[in-house]
Amino acid sequence: MIEVEAQLADVLAATVPLPSDTVPLAAAHGRVIAETVTTRYALPPWTNSAMDGYAVRAADVAAASKEMPVALDVIADLPAGTSADPRILAGQAARIMTGAPVPADADAIVPVEATDGGEERVIISAPATPGVHIRRAGEDRQPGDPLVSAGSRASAEALSALASAGYGTIAVSRRPRLAVIATGSELVAPGEPLARGQIPDSNSLLISSLAVENGAELVDVVRVSDEVSELDAALRSLAKRCDVIVLTGGVSMGAYDPVKELLSPDGQVHFSKVAMQPGKPQGFGRLAEPWVADDELGPLVFGLPGNPVSAWVSFLVFVRPCLRALQGASTVEDPRLSARAEIDWRTPPGRRQYLPARIRTTDAGVTVSPAAARGSGSHLVGSLADANGYAIVDASVERVYEGDVVQVVRLVSDVDARL
Amino acid sequence: MIEVEAQLADVLAATVPLPSDTVPLAAAHGRVIAETVTTRYALPPWTNSAMDGYAVRAADVAAASKEMPVALDVIADLPAGTSADPRILAGQAARIMTGAPVPADADAIVPVEATDGGEERVIISAPATPGVHIRRAGEDRQPGDPLVSAGSRASAEALSALASAGYGTIAVSRRPRLAVIATGSELVAPGEPLARGQIPDSNSLLISSLAVENGAELVDVVRVSDEVSELDAALRSLAKRCDVIVLTGGVSMGAYDPVKELLSPDGQVHFSKVAMQPGKPQGFGRLAEPWVADDELGPLVFGLPGNPVSAWVSFLVFVRPCLRALQGASTVEDPRLSARAEIDWRTPPGRRQYLPARIRTTDAGVTVSPAAARGSGSHLVGSLADANGYAIVDASVERVYEGDVVQVVRLVSDVDARL
Repeated sequence: MIEVEAQLADVLAATVPLPSDTVPLAAAHGRVIAETVTTRYALPPWTNSAMDGYAVRAADVAAASKEMPVALDVIADLPAGTSADPRILAGQAARIMTGAPVPADADAIVPVEATDGGEERVIISAPATPGVHIRRAGEDRQPGDPLVSAGSRASAEALSALASAGYGTIAVSRRPRLAVIATGSELVAPGEPLARGQIPDSNSLLISSLAVENGAELVDVVRVSDEVSELDAALRSLAKRCDVIVLTGGVSMGAYDPVKELLSPDGQVHFSKVAMQPGKPQGFGRLAEPWVADDELGPLVFGLPGNPVSAWVSFLVFVRPCLRALQGASTVEDPRLSARAEIDWRTPPGRRQYLPARIRTTDAGVTVSPAAARGSGSHLVGSLADANGYAIVDASVERVYEGDVVQVVRLVSDVDARL
Repeated sequence: MIEVEAQLADVLAATVPLPSDTVPLAAAHGRVIAETVTTRYALPPWTNSAMDGYAVRAADVAAASKEMPVALDVIADLPAGTSADPRILAGQAARIMTGAPVPADADAIVPVEATDGGEERVIISAPATPGVHIRRAGEDRQPGDPLVSAGSRASAEALSALASAGYGTIAVSRRPRLAVIATGSELVAPGEPLARGQIPDSNSLLISSLAVENGAELVDVVRVSDEVSELDAALRSLAKRCDVIVLTGGVSMGAYDPVKELLSPDGQVHFSKVAMQPGKPQGFGRLAEPWVADDELGPLVFGLPGNPVSAWVSFLVFVRPCLRALQGASTVEDPRLSARAEIDWRTPPGRRQYLPARIRTTDAGVTVSPAAARGSGSHLVGSLADANGYAIVDASVERVYEGDVVQVVRLVSDVDARL
């Protein structure tokens, strides 16, 4: 058996980041940013008013009060978007709206609420100090300040900051083109009636949805029996259209495991036993001849075990980091937290456990419990719907006791989990 | 001024959940599930083998060992997907693959690794106990067991569980159809050169991207000047195609605030001052005549303030819960955590603060610091890219000190934040 780290290192060593495209900001949403950019325009670009009111010389109104108001001549009207920069002399003011550039001669804004709102002559009944209600050009960011980093996600917030800082486009990595092939003669389409021995194909949905959640563009989702010829035909159809092909099932010790039978001989896809539970049998490599021409780089191929929990864990531990690395994400492995076990559970001897779990952040700290009420088997697909992450327990541990600290990965935030 | 809770209550009181559609599972991905469903098929549906190996009568091999192996006649070969249920008599075994149904006469599985792999006669060199390596029908879920709840998200995991439990389709709520109208004569398209007084329109990207992240289907994104006629034309074009229209800008005290000018008189959109910072001016209501016929229900309208941080906070506090309620989500408000302040910051007098923040979960607990290095103004759009949530500080607090406990909402998980 090889360690999880060694298997993942093999995966990442074979993963070549995809090229990037420069696209309009709206088209970049959700993708991984491929360039580190700095602020182009100062933020804000103009010294501007933070309030609807009057631009004044602060000295003129330093002593203004309800009892002793000050009257100023209104010599200009400055809506947002104006380019005007009127001279303002002593005793004068300009009406100004939020966001409009502050005239060079003014050094304070009096909010409209502290005036009579006059259009030719304004009565000001509160004092102002120099700088008040003025946003200085560049006080958020100066040109050249850091803005977004290559490898970060183009979130709503990042796109908004990019637009404000002067960008209309941004380079983002191409989405990995991915296909899923679920293998197994026992599989039928979801919702179809089952004969004895048949089960619904849930892995197609699981893996394709996880792939999309991790930035992939779905090329196709195919279900094949354990006939090698069907798998071969699927690979022929997909080899030139994909960056990644994820297969489920057919990778273990069975007499009818078509994935292993078909892909082992070409020597480019290796089948390993990894010291984890679930997920021990793993296939990984790069598709080569006869599916790919000798001088072409074939897609990466993952052969995941077919049990749903095994496929889930294998995706998260191996495929997800690969998809992130393909997209140039700055962090490819999931950050871990320490969590306190809410109950006892058993762990497999000699292999590291990856357990679908419920992780809760409370005021008292992070806690974890198994997602499945009835044990931790790799077939417990019902429990997946209740998991918001997984626990990782060292191979040397034989049982987790209530209160023990274990490592966890939280996959969805508290917010997402509750939507 | 009214309290945030009162404004949100107004919003939710006007929000009528959208109807649902029953769609194939793959089409449901990411949407909100509209029906509580229980397990239809037992999980697993058949008592089946957890290993590739041999189905045996445990009594036959109870004493088997390397030194004293037991030989059994192989009377059947059971691949995954088979419907066969062969009689197995004393001294007999059936070769069986992972997932294949276990014959009624067998009560244990011997893994192939503990045998010589024989096809007609198999030598077994390890003992087996009754039930070993057998997954009992229904041991994960029984028919009628809870599976997914109305109001939860159709995640990859939930879809996988639904498929396994017998479903091919699921009812999900319709996505809210949403349009964004950014108002302001100072706005130019992102990436365009700026004349004095102009700024890039970042709110269109911010609000439309946030809406999509919260399940909306984007109908249109429109930018208009402060000319009332332009806004009027935009509303005429969008009124019949949307469930929600979100406007930014033009809601405050300005002389040229078209949103307030156009929508106040019809009496269905109310403009309020809410006791929060940023986000004090808020418009909310339902569009009516002349944009919507007398007997029709018009779209919900939000008039958010135009400063980017104000718009962001307003979206999260008012629009996001509305979108969730429209989709029938079981939780509409963001759960809060307690976090310890990493540094001091100032808060506005008399209004509750909503501060874009960096929230970190460490082994020592949850911590929070302002996302903006340079203060907390509502125009600090650069800081939004650095925020993964926000802090909420009571109106009565004048200053947060390092080590104080404040309430926070974490919007993205540690994992998402690092992608």
